Amino acid sequence: MIEMNVNVRSIEPYKLVSQDIWRGKQNIIKADWNEEFFRNKKVEKVIINFVKKGLYSYYPDVEAKELRETLSEFHSIPINNISVFNGSDEALDVICRTFLNQGDKVVIRNPEYTNFYVFVQSMGAVLLKHFQKNPFVLSKNDFLEYLEREKPKMVYLSNPNNPTGILYPKEFLKSLIENFKSTLFVIDEAYVHFAYEKIEDMDFFLKLSINTSNLIVVRTFSKLFSLAGLRIGYIVSNEDIIKALNLIKKPKNVTMVSQIAAREAIRHWDFYNDKKIEILKAKNYFCNKAAALYFVKRVYNSNSNFVCVEVKEEIDIHKTIEFLKKEGVYVRDRSYIPQLDRIFRVTITGFEQVEQILNKFYKLENRVLNK
Amino acid sequence: MIEMNVNVRSIEPYKLVSQDIWRGKQNIIKADWNEEFFRNKKVEKVIINFVKKGLYSYYPDVEAKELRETLSEFHSIPINNISVFNGSDEALDVICRTFLNQGDKVVIRNPEYTNFYVFVQSMGAVLLKHFQKNPFVLSKNDFLEYLEREKPKMVYLSNPNNPTGILYPKEFLKSLIENFKSTLFVIDEAYVHFAYEKIEDMDFFLKLSINTSNLIVVRTFSKLFSLAGLRIGYIVSNEDIIKALNLIKKPKNVTMVSQIAAREAIRHWDFYNDKKIEILKAKNYFCNKAAALYFVKRVYNSNSNFVCVEVKEEIDIHKTIEFLKKEGVYVRDRSYIPQLDRIFRVTITGFEQVEQILNKFYKLENRVLNK
Repeated sequence: MIEMNVNVRSIEPYKLVSQDIWRGKQNIIKADWNEEFFRNKKVEKVIINFVKKGLYSYYPDVEAKELRETLSEFHSIPINNISVFNGSDEALDVICRTFLNQGDKVVIRNPEYTNFYVFVQSMGAVLLKHFQKNPFVLSKNDFLEYLEREKPKMVYLSNPNNPTGILYPKEFLKSLIENFKSTLFVIDEAYVHFAYEKIEDMDFFLKLSINTSNLIVVRTFSKLFSLAGLRIGYIVSNEDIIKALNLIKKPKNVTMVSQIAAREAIRHWDFYNDKKIEILKAKNYFCNKAAALYFVKRVYNSNSNFVCVEVKEEIDIHKTIEFLKKEGVYVRDRSYIPQLDRIFRVTITGFEQVEQILNKFYKLENRVLNK
Repeated sequence: MIEMNVNVRSIEPYKLVSQDIWRGKQNIIKADWNEEFFRNKKVEKVIINFVKKGLYSYYPDVEAKELRETLSEFHSIPINNISVFNGSDEALDVICRTFLNQGDKVVIRNPEYTNFYVFVQSMGAVLLKHFQKNPFVLSKNDFLEYLEREKPKMVYLSNPNNPTGILYPKEFLKSLIENFKSTLFVIDEAYVHFAYEKIEDMDFFLKLSINTSNLIVVRTFSKLFSLAGLRIGYIVSNEDIIKALNLIKKPKNVTMVSQIAAREAIRHWDFYNDKKIEILKAKNYFCNKAAALYFVKRVYNSNSNFVCVEVKEEIDIHKTIEFLKKEGVYVRDRSYIPQLDRIFRVTITGFEQVEQILNKFYKLENRVLNK
């Protein structure tokens, strides 16, 4: 075969979840990819109207002007600090391509969103995984010392973290950004809506990024906004960084259906905020119930829309996940990630879903106890 | 600012067309980006049904299985030789990232689809523009000698060529692919449906690519299939190349709305084929009428859905394009491309559109003659 790019040929592909939902199994409980499923009829209506006008034949708005205007208004930030992408994955990829050179150091604190690793590897940059004693408890000093030692070109962190659900304290993170001016901090806030009550708190780093030279905030419509199938993410940063990213970003990247759907969604923040409150209640309920089970060693409640469930030493994690899958409950195996040996992740989408999952947990519990 | 990637920082951005269509001007005649505008009610229906089921909340099918199955059937090729992308632009980008290293030579014959240049530059590869005496007439020997001299890593060619509309003869191109085994040939067939009557002819290189080590064929749903706003492209090649591209390709790249729309479109080939015949007739009519005008030096009929119009030496090309724009006819300025000094490109979408454009041409003609 034709010789490949030296960096790409050694990439380890990102592990994907089951595609059964698209293989005729639309009754499964999909708790494996952290999607939410709130149907907003107003969003559906704008898509249908758009299609009925036949406007899908035109290339999409390459500036995503109306979507960016709506986001600008929603966040009270200038439009020129916003750039829209085909999902936050594309945003992360474009960030890596724009700022990484061969051999550059990129720090993540283990565990992290593993899809990001592919983008780092494709640039020939060096991914440094920083391991701490307990992945579910941030050791600030340890992290600070690691950064001081490595002086990386980039730090990537999902905040709240996926999959642990922990939140980096604001002031600590802010001080890192201020103290490591040559390090680009990429904060992936896919789950930030679940972490705070007030928009001011959610938007803390987003606002900070406008006048900070080394900070990019990444957002997505795939989680709370329930539009994963339409692929829309966006980033907020200072204008110079936005301009730099636009050099390599493909201008026709986001479909017009996605642009108008996202714009309509953001206009109905209250709808999603109400749904969020419901999810958080359901999540707490789930944590309490699941923690009481024999086969469960520990449930890690989170600042997000998912929780990590750790099974007891004597329990086979793979068989557990397989059992749940056969029962129609799809959870995410995290056990191959270092430090998460006996852990699977469960997406929470509401009380009804939680009851259905718990029922299967009880069934599993009976099997374990009767063995 | 944070130091940029050494290749990306010197990229010259691709020149975009006017976005007036998304700025409230939906009555303009959009003849600038080679889109077609055939509304297929069946395509619209599947999108609307999909939206009404709320399935947009799930991440898209990362294997695009049903779309690839339909394409496999349509082309009579195995499914494993097909990969689907967020528009053919993403396909071209992923090809460059997978196979180009710093300093690799990439040959194009001037003029070419300029957006491709960005992808080459981002990899630090060297774009070699091969100029021939007449861009509208292929000199085979000249091209062959150039390839022999440069021995490039990659040759990119749109076939039919955009913007000249010329077609590379099958046997000539096939012999190049056979004789330059270390060169990857990327044939962009965005406009191939307009070039041939029979599917066998359209699919000649596509079929050849299955068992050829150095050939990738790129297709799109943005032209004849009238789905530019939904961003769907695909490539066909041998299995090893498909696997290599999948390493860096983002699995969630194509929205689910786009996947189901494209699948439905391809099922109605006869509908689009009929439309194509209409376009070609309208194009010939346009060429005859336009060529008779005083301000026009020459009209270059094409193997595609567009034509190049060359204005006389005494005519100001920029004022001409500006005049047409003010009259609501948006054409594509190609005059900044070497060898195309006084040329603009016009997309043909049907008889009605051609009549509207000609009316504005006549208006311009009167102005020129009365000056």
